[in-house]
Amino acid sequence: MTEAKKVKIMLLKTVSALGQERELGSVLSEICAPETEAEIWSLASVPKLTNLEYRTYETFVGPDMLRAIRKAEREGFDAVIIGCFMDPHIAAARELSRSTVIVGSCQASLQVASSLGAKFSVLVGAKHWISHVEELVRHYGYADRLSSVLPMEIDAADLRDDVATTVTKIIDLGRRAIEEDGADVIVMGCTYTFGMYRAIQDALNVPVIDPAFASFKMAELLAWQKKTFGWMQSNGVGQQAPPESEIEAFELFAVPPAIGCRVEIG
Amino acid sequence: MTEAKKVKIMLLKTVSALGQERELGSVLSEICAPETEAEIWSLASVPKLTNLEYRTYETFVGPDMLRAIRKAEREGFDAVIIGCFMDPHIAAARELSRSTVIVGSCQASLQVASSLGAKFSVLVGAKHWISHVEELVRHYGYADRLSSVLPMEIDAADLRDDVATTVTKIIDLGRRAIEEDGADVIVMGCTYTFGMYRAIQDALNVPVIDPAFASFKMAELLAWQKKTFGWMQSNGVGQQAPPESEIEAFELFAVPPAIGCRVEIG
Amino acid sequence: MTEAKKVKIMLLKTVSALGQERELGSVLSEICAPETEAEIWSLASVPKLTNLEYRTYETFVGPDMLRAIRKAEREGFDAVIIGCFMDPHIAAARELSRSTVIVGSCQASLQVASSLGAKFSVLVGAKHWISHVEELVRHYGYADRLSSVLPMEIDAADLRDDVATTVTKIIDLGRRAIEEDGADVIVMGCTYTFGMYRAIQDALNVPVIDPAFASFKMAELLAWQKKTFGWMQSNGVGQQAPPESEIEAFELFAVPPAIGCRVEIG
Amino acid sequence: MTEAKKVKIMLLKTVSALGQERELGSVLSEICAPETEAEIWSLASVPKLTNLEYRTYETFVGPDMLRAIRKAEREGFDAVIIGCFMDPHIAAARELSRSTVIVGSCQASLQVASSLGAKFSVLVGAKHWISHVEELVRHYGYADRLSSVLPMEIDAADLRDDVATTVTKIIDLGRRAIEEDGADVIVMGCTYTFGMYRAIQDALNVPVIDPAFASFKMAELLAWQKKTFGWMQSNGVGQQAPPESEIEAFELFAVPPAIGCRVEIG
Amino acid sequence: MTEAKKVKIMLLKTVSALGQERELGSVLSEICAPETEAEIWSLASVPKLTNLEYRTYETFVGPDMLRAIRKAEREGFDAVIIGCFMDPHIAAARELSRSTVIVGSCQASLQVASSLGAKFSVLVGAKHWISHVEELVRHYGYADRLSSVLPMEIDAADLRDDVATTVTKIIDLGRRAIEEDGADVIVMGCTYTFGMYRAIQDALNVPVIDPAFASFKMAELLAWQKKTFGWMQSNGVGQQAPPESEIEAFELFAVPPAIGCRVEIG
Amino acid sequence: MTEAKKVKIMLLKTVSALGQERELGSVLSEICAPETEAEIWSLASVPKLTNLEYRTYETFVGPDMLRAIRKAEREGFDAVIIGCFMDPHIAAARELSRSTVIVGSCQASLQVASSLGAKFSVLVGAKHWISHVEELVRHYGYADRLSSVLPMEIDAADLRDDVATTVTKIIDLGRRAIEEDGADVIVMGCTYTFGMYRAIQDALNVPVIDPAFASFKMAELLAWQKKTFGWMQSNGVGQQAPPESEIEAFELFAVPPAIGCRVEIG
Repeated sequence: MTEAKKVKIMLLKTVSALGQERELGSVLSEICAPETEAEIWSLASVPKLTNLEYRTYETFVGPDMLRAIRKAEREGFDAVIIGCFMDPHIAAARELSRSTVIVGSCQASLQVASSLGAKFSVLVGAKHWISHVEELVRHYGYADRLSSVLPMEIDAADLRDDVATTVTKIIDLGRRAIEEDGADVIVMGCTYTFGMYRAIQDALNVPVIDPAFASFKMAELLAWQKKTFGWMQSNGVGQQAPPESEIEAFELFAVPPAIGCRVEIG
Repeated sequence: MTEAKKVKIMLLKTVSALGQERELGSVLSEICAPETEAEIWSLASVPKLTNLEYRTYETFVGPDMLRAIRKAEREGFDAVIIGCFMDPHIAAARELSRSTVIVGSCQASLQVASSLGAKFSVLVGAKHWISHVEELVRHYGYADRLSSVLPMEIDAADLRDDVATTVTKIIDLGRRAIEEDGADVIVMGCTYTFGMYRAIQDALNVPVIDPAFASFKMAELLAWQKKTFGWMQSNGVGQQAPPESEIEAFELFAVPPAIGCRVEIG
Repeated sequence: MTEAKKVKIMLLKTVSALGQERELGSVLSEICAPETEAEIWSLASVPKLTNLEYRTYETFVGPDMLRAIRKAEREGFDAVIIGCFMDPHIAAARELSRSTVIVGSCQASLQVASSLGAKFSVLVGAKHWISHVEELVRHYGYADRLSSVLPMEIDAADLRDDVATTVTKIIDLGRRAIEEDGADVIVMGCTYTFGMYRAIQDALNVPVIDPAFASFKMAELLAWQKKTFGWMQSNGVGQQAPPESEIEAFELFAVPPAIGCRVEIG
Repeated sequence: MTEAKKVKIMLLKTVSALGQERELGSVLSEICAPETEAEIWSLASVPKLTNLEYRTYETFVGPDMLRAIRKAEREGFDAVIIGCFMDPHIAAARELSRSTVIVGSCQASLQVASSLGAKFSVLVGAKHWISHVEELVRHYGYADRLSSVLPMEIDAADLRDDVATTVTKIIDLGRRAIEEDGADVIVMGCTYTFGMYRAIQDALNVPVIDPAFASFKMAELLAWQKKTFGWMQSNGVGQQAPPESEIEAFELFAVPPAIGCRVEIG
Repeated sequence: MTEAKKVKIMLLKTVSALGQERELGSVLSEICAPETEAEIWSLASVPKLTNLEYRTYETFVGPDMLRAIRKAEREGFDAVIIGCFMDPHIAAARELSRSTVIVGSCQASLQVASSLGAKFSVLVGAKHWISHVEELVRHYGYADRLSSVLPMEIDAADLRDDVATTVTKIIDLGRRAIEEDGADVIVMGCTYTFGMYRAIQDALNVPVIDPAFASFKMAELLAWQKKTFGWMQSNGVGQQAPPESEIEAFELFAVPPAIGCRVEIG
Repeated sequence: MTEAKKVKIMLLKTVSALGQERELGSVLSEICAPETEAEIWSLASVPKLTNLEYRTYETFVGPDMLRAIRKAEREGFDAVIIGCFMDPHIAAARELSRSTVIVGSCQASLQVASSLGAKFSVLVGAKHWISHVEELVRHYGYADRLSSVLPMEIDAADLRDDVATTVTKIIDLGRRAIEEDGADVIVMGCTYTFGMYRAIQDALNVPVIDPAFASFKMAELLAWQKKTFGWMQSNGVGQQAPPESEIEAFELFAVPPAIGCRVEIG
């Protein structure tokens, strides 16, 4: 039997204005393994930003995401979770990173979903996410398993205002996904709904994947495997990192990331 | 912080004639989490079978695989690993199962590989596996990430006879996958090479995924999630189980599985 | 002009409890070519089984299917039809077989359908078949031609109880496939509806493919071609049979298949 | 047992300048069923044309192909074979036709090939056919089963000049397809090689599909099914024929087809 | 700054019976660049033909299309537009042509649409076009961007009879495409609706692509690039033209095209 | 005949350290239409950056790219060209933009290539671009037309140091693409090779697409169409822009873009 191995994980939230870090940290501390040392970092690069619902917003937080990931790598974090369902900048993060494994909220959720059922539906916040998520699902290779992408039509920022109403709405939508579209699994396509999966799952009687939880536990797994098996983020030709000499010459990381808040989990 | 949660995992080997259960069990006990209770079961339904290299052989072990999985579900196992890289009968196993999550050696390996690099190659035992693995990779949705499937041209049964020679051969093949085909990650397409990944990885400098390890740790994760989040094997319409009344009427499980050997891990 | 060449064909039914062999044999004898010698074999390996509607059931009949196919090859049958629309174990059967060509009910039906129209819909028994058939259609390469898979919501076992009602229901469903989904051809996705196609076709005015008939006639063709052109089941690298030495050593075919009933056609 | 049913089949050759009709007719008469009444029609619309190796040539023979098919339908032919491997104008022919089923040389060959092996290679006349055939194979849905398209680099017109040399060359090419590309079946991608398959097949030990033979026998099957089951060329919305009133008003078939030669088979 | 370069463009209408050449010419003259010399040629090969709504009709105009394109190449036209949304015979035209670039109405429209939005819907005349357009969109590579193909259910020949009614109908259909199917761009799938896009676009507030305009301007661009950059229609192996010696020997272009009407634009 | 319409175009270079703006501007002024007012803007957000060869670098220039595009929209530019072959941030740019049409260097090049030949190869700078370009080509829908992606193995920064050597190397590579991979068209997969296409094309005798030229002329076309037809960047649901109120509240564009250099063309 192995001795429990300590792993260090960072959950990178790209938005700090909502101040949900503590609530999220408290929820995650309940599912965090004893041997995991985890932190939430929220970026303040765009200080007033309250959501990441547009590709425009994603673009603006990109440089600080990479700065934070590099800082995390320097601090010895074994894995970083991109804490937004659209997995923004994941390819760049994986290219840059080596000993810190990058985990996508969407990718981890789809991996779990595809192990549990033949078909899954993704519930997103608004209609304009539908084609984005379809494309992301296609990119990850799960197009044939996608039963539908359905919009909750709730602002990400409002999702937690009246949790009971949100949950009721999602249950109705999930039922439609199951009965009309043939979903075996429901994937919550938004990281702001953390913790709500349980009530929805009880009502729908199929697995309801919470991306915050799925990605956190996948990060623990990949972090552990990296430490134990040496399964790092590959630096192969399809994901080759920029030469360190260029990174220095270009002064890419001269400025530190604007971290608004750093919360310990557990 | 959560208290460590006990999970029960069964690794299902479909061949018992090789008698490698103890060696495998010993290797796995080194990576097994303290809170995991794990066993290897090897089937003796086709007692003299020494490999599962043909679909014909897969078909013959099918009924006993389902019997063993059902038995495991009855005994409270949280996850069962299909211990053959071709993931035989995984769809039937997932259809039948509910509170026991089914893990595929291939699927788990591809999930890890696709998190670590942009492209991966699979090294298989013999040429006649190439089109089977291509089809399996396509089925799981990773066709666009597959750089190549290359044959080791070593009999599965001989792989462990002279490990040093096997490893040298695999390193050469892996180098070809990296340099000619652009692989960022190497996936060992055979569960008999368990433990060899380390030497190959050190030589190739890209992650080399051992399916025995990748699937075991994925099983621990999915088992834990099932117990904690209730993420069971879905019984939705795309994966609906036969009615219990029919199962009984047809006397499907009247005969117990022929389990040749049952080894505790850890 | 060639002399009519005798061919021997076996239709393999995996379920014998329904006792429909004689009715089916009588229907097929009306379409059987004079030079064809044909038999229905129904398996009794799971004696009380009344349907093959789940992958679980498919798995249980697998070994005896292979045993029956090998027996048929030994007895000189030129072709064997897998008498279930899901074409269970067809890849294993083709791998094992050489001088006996294996015909799939689904594959043969889709080949005919794709020659007759641009798009086709498949009518299946129950909702839980939808994703299975979608996957099978994708596997055979016809995804772009599939207009829809619609469930009849009739138990396979009940389909023949009140044929008039069944036919009326199917006509309604077929009309929906044509008008809403754009089907040019209707494929009956269940071999239990044998013979009903005619009334449905007369009502719908598009070809309605009966898989029992389509596969029987395709088997006659492939059997004839094998005898005349030598077009056997390939033993190439993508479909390589296990070595005979292993088959013997593993005693795979020590036990004969449990054939419940053997009916001559014609 | 059914009485043998007479069917009428026409093989449409789009080129008449080569004068191979009699040789082809004689070869086909050896494989023609006793109950089949068959004819070869060769078009003289472009009288000096000796091959159909370019899309340009295909376009020129299009109108007369449709005129000949309509004439055949009027004369009661049950099936027409498009006697060129590229299946030119098959969609238009199927749209126009109703009681005459249209058979494509390529489509029929691929249907047979995909029943006999997991992967197939197509051998074409010249390099410029490669991308055309790849596209055709993709169109018919067999992209995942295509191991390669290899050029014989022999002019269609010269293929029969020195049969022994042609056969030797094809055997070499077929061996490469099998050993390097993993082909289980070889498809001759040219209808001018009729009859050569046998020597090649004996040398290669995998099925070698002759499109002239495969399509002729498929035509017999589809013709018989049409007469017996009423499985006509669908006139559904995806393949809807022009209104007869327009056909008349536009005087589309005012001119008869230029048939250079009409040879009876058998 | 470059001097404006003269280019010569021909718009090939395959139907002349409608006599819309002058109206179309007048509309196009308003968008024609000053340095463009343009003509509409309408074919009279099938003199009474009033539409090209069936593949049958497309086949009949094929030879004269190629004759007209060759004539245009001889007369120094830099680009020819295939003036029908289904882009009939475009592959043959591109094979034959070298210094005259061939522009497809559909392909040009989809290129513009895919630059302006993530998803587009195509509005076609009749239901029987749906599967044809789906196939064409797939062929051009835009399957993932297609939100829907919706039928206007108006005869091509009647589209311009009551423009206000046609426009109202199209606006309703376009709204459905936007609201239900998620279209960002509407593509008019019929060249007879030329000029109507503006009123529809004003009502729908998304780009509405007129294929007559999109293809005309794309032709100007490709013609200019050909003259300036030498970007001709490739004669590479995937699009190789027939040898001139064969073209002469076969007397393919002995007969001139039946040009019903030749209208200058601008 | 229309009066020439003035359009304003901006070519956005994301790297300013190389100081090639003037050379590029001078080359482009030779192909610029008389009625086009064009400028090159090069970003200095990462002042020492000399290439954009990694996704990491792309991420860093993202915010300033959006700032520059918004500034251009405010200044009345009709189109902006993303002056890097990987089309970084094109989806975000199109989402944000409305009256300024966004043109991708890669997308425009592939659109031209797919109009000129059946298959094309892309020549990239280094091996690590291969999988990125394959993914981009797949994303744009041209996977079936891609013959190969071949690496020049020259640093982007060195490409112009010895043009004759670069050209010779590219000709060799292009020949391989044509002869071995069947390319009909060569696409230069790097915007730094501007102007070299001509010598390569003369040697290879197939079209060689220069992305700087192809995208510049496509931008002129799309800009003109926007002004004349109102074909704006769609703000439909698949590409919906963030609400202006949020953009202001989040102070996204509080800081102006760091424009290193602004060069007029023509």
